[in-house]
Amino acid sequence: VSIATIADLNEAELVARIQGRLAKPPDWVVVGIGDDAAVIEPERNRLEVLTVDALVEGVHFERRFTPADAIGYRALAVNLSDLAAMGASPRVALLSLALPQDLLCTDFDAMVGGLAALAARHHIHLVGGNLTRTSGPLVLDVTVTGSVKRRQVLTRQGARPGDEILVTGSLGAAAAGLQFLQQETEPSQTSANLAPAQQLVHRYRYPQPRLRMGQLLSRSKAATSCVDLSDGLADGLRQIAKASDVGIAIDADAIPIDSDARAWFQSQGRDPVLEALTRGDDYELAICLRPRQRGRLAAAIRHGDAPVTRVGVCTAALDLVLRRIVDGRSHLEPLPQGYSHFK
Amino acid sequence: VSIATIADLNEAELVARIQGRLAKPPDWVVVGIGDDAAVIEPERNRLEVLTVDALVEGVHFERRFTPADAIGYRALAVNLSDLAAMGASPRVALLSLALPQDLLCTDFDAMVGGLAALAARHHIHLVGGNLTRTSGPLVLDVTVTGSVKRRQVLTRQGARPGDEILVTGSLGAAAAGLQFLQQETEPSQTSANLAPAQQLVHRYRYPQPRLRMGQLLSRSKAATSCVDLSDGLADGLRQIAKASDVGIAIDADAIPIDSDARAWFQSQGRDPVLEALTRGDDYELAICLRPRQRGRLAAAIRHGDAPVTRVGVCTAALDLVLRRIVDGRSHLEPLPQGYSHFK
Repeated sequence: VSIATIADLNEAELVARIQGRLAKPPDWVVVGIGDDAAVIEPERNRLEVLTVDALVEGVHFERRFTPADAIGYRALAVNLSDLAAMGASPRVALLSLALPQDLLCTDFDAMVGGLAALAARHHIHLVGGNLTRTSGPLVLDVTVTGSVKRRQVLTRQGARPGDEILVTGSLGAAAAGLQFLQQETEPSQTSANLAPAQQLVHRYRYPQPRLRMGQLLSRSKAATSCVDLSDGLADGLRQIAKASDVGIAIDADAIPIDSDARAWFQSQGRDPVLEALTRGDDYELAICLRPRQRGRLAAAIRHGDAPVTRVGVCTAALDLVLRRIVDGRSHLEPLPQGYSHFK
Repeated sequence: VSIATIADLNEAELVARIQGRLAKPPDWVVVGIGDDAAVIEPERNRLEVLTVDALVEGVHFERRFTPADAIGYRALAVNLSDLAAMGASPRVALLSLALPQDLLCTDFDAMVGGLAALAARHHIHLVGGNLTRTSGPLVLDVTVTGSVKRRQVLTRQGARPGDEILVTGSLGAAAAGLQFLQQETEPSQTSANLAPAQQLVHRYRYPQPRLRMGQLLSRSKAATSCVDLSDGLADGLRQIAKASDVGIAIDADAIPIDSDARAWFQSQGRDPVLEALTRGDDYELAICLRPRQRGRLAAAIRHGDAPVTRVGVCTAALDLVLRRIVDGRSHLEPLPQGYSHFK
């Protein structure tokens, strides 16, 4: 029997296909998939962290740019990045899917597989969800929970004037990868620079949530505040500035722009600094830190999985500024707005 | 300045409109709306219950049949009903909205208001969420958590042959109300039976999650299993039969069909029993109970907010049957399939 689209399957069959890709849940999952709700045992002496993020076809991804497994992967990754920014360890996930009836079963399986593979890597357990059809675009809503000790919660509040601002990893690669995909109308038109482009595309499709770094920062108590850069560095810093009531001064030259991304932006006549500041899809962390805590940070970095770069400083003046060196002279401009899916 | 649709607002403005309708969160909400994730203190010596449900325009509701406040109300109510079926007390909710750009701001506000009013009534706190635009239908994804003592969790498992099957409240009113709305093309065509019809429409739009009943049943330890009837009684009983490995025998005459709904179905030439069994949108509970626990149940009912009616029995034979009395003689037929949004 050939099963083409998910319209050929009922809800129980779709649930069974999901369950077939999941590892056995741990003992603290008391009731998993298949009842009115999931039941779990909270972790002792920990606070619980909860967040939800949606990916909507046509807004957050295009099916033609994004293989099905990457759609599922990204739907979980963006949530794990929020847990990372709070310093939390992942616990459980709920998956709510609104499925167009023309979705291929093979794509459904690959999508669930991409999510399940990332879940296994970070020891997060899918314990429930919801399936519905839709006449509109594919929507993936993922809710995740995590746990963190009370005194180790990282929030957007707490930054103070004089704090250093640091960024994990490198910026711009995901945005460059997406731009490459948007311009590449036919595979045969691919330029000679295929390997770097493929690396950029990979960074767009499979962002690495900085869970380990977030947990190390949280345990070291080095950071005064933290935010994830899902909507870009400028947006993330704006959130910290607003929540902490500080200003921000960023050095353009210090921003850790991915070298392939920088080359791509330059080849397109775009300013790499503005691209790295304003484009979303970088799931790195921005951290504020009292200068005297640099020792604690160094220990966290030694055990972490990403470099950390100082990009600027929190200020008492409430402006948000970008400092560039032009012809050897320092030049201040307003920090650009971040990416917004809305107006 | 006249603001017509949500396309005129940015994300922060929409979030502010939501926050303006929420009560102050309790102390155990450590971080609420406005950070990468919410942080809450788990309840001591309780298990956590989690569930997510989506409402998709065109699948679960039509904007022309459902006032905006009822859309928001229902999105939370269907989730609270899942908590009720587990015997849980509500704690927090996350709201993820995919918004068409033509949604009126007044409708956005009313939708959030309907949800917030029900949340206040049941002491559940909205601590986070996600907002995105969509080119497709309005989607509301609500995640809720609740708490329950370990030995008081109600699941679909645990029913045994000989258990009585009971149903809270009455069935069919929501389905009749929806059918009335679907047939009523113009307000002026409204029949003479306006008051009963309005009552049915109200039951469709504002279902009452049976939280108090679920908690009383859970604490009394009277029930062996429980399910909510979001997809109808037949579907709910099928779930219990499958999870508990029992058969089900239902007496058609015993089903507590709402009297106005019965009159409506008969006026339409429809079988009230089949309608009450197979239509969704009844957010009542079905419960299984060992006959010797009737005393405990009676105590729960005394303090509850809904009548409870015996409709049948669990059997060792694995069939699912409906018993009707036709011309004074007992007649068995297969229990019909429940409602499905899928194939």
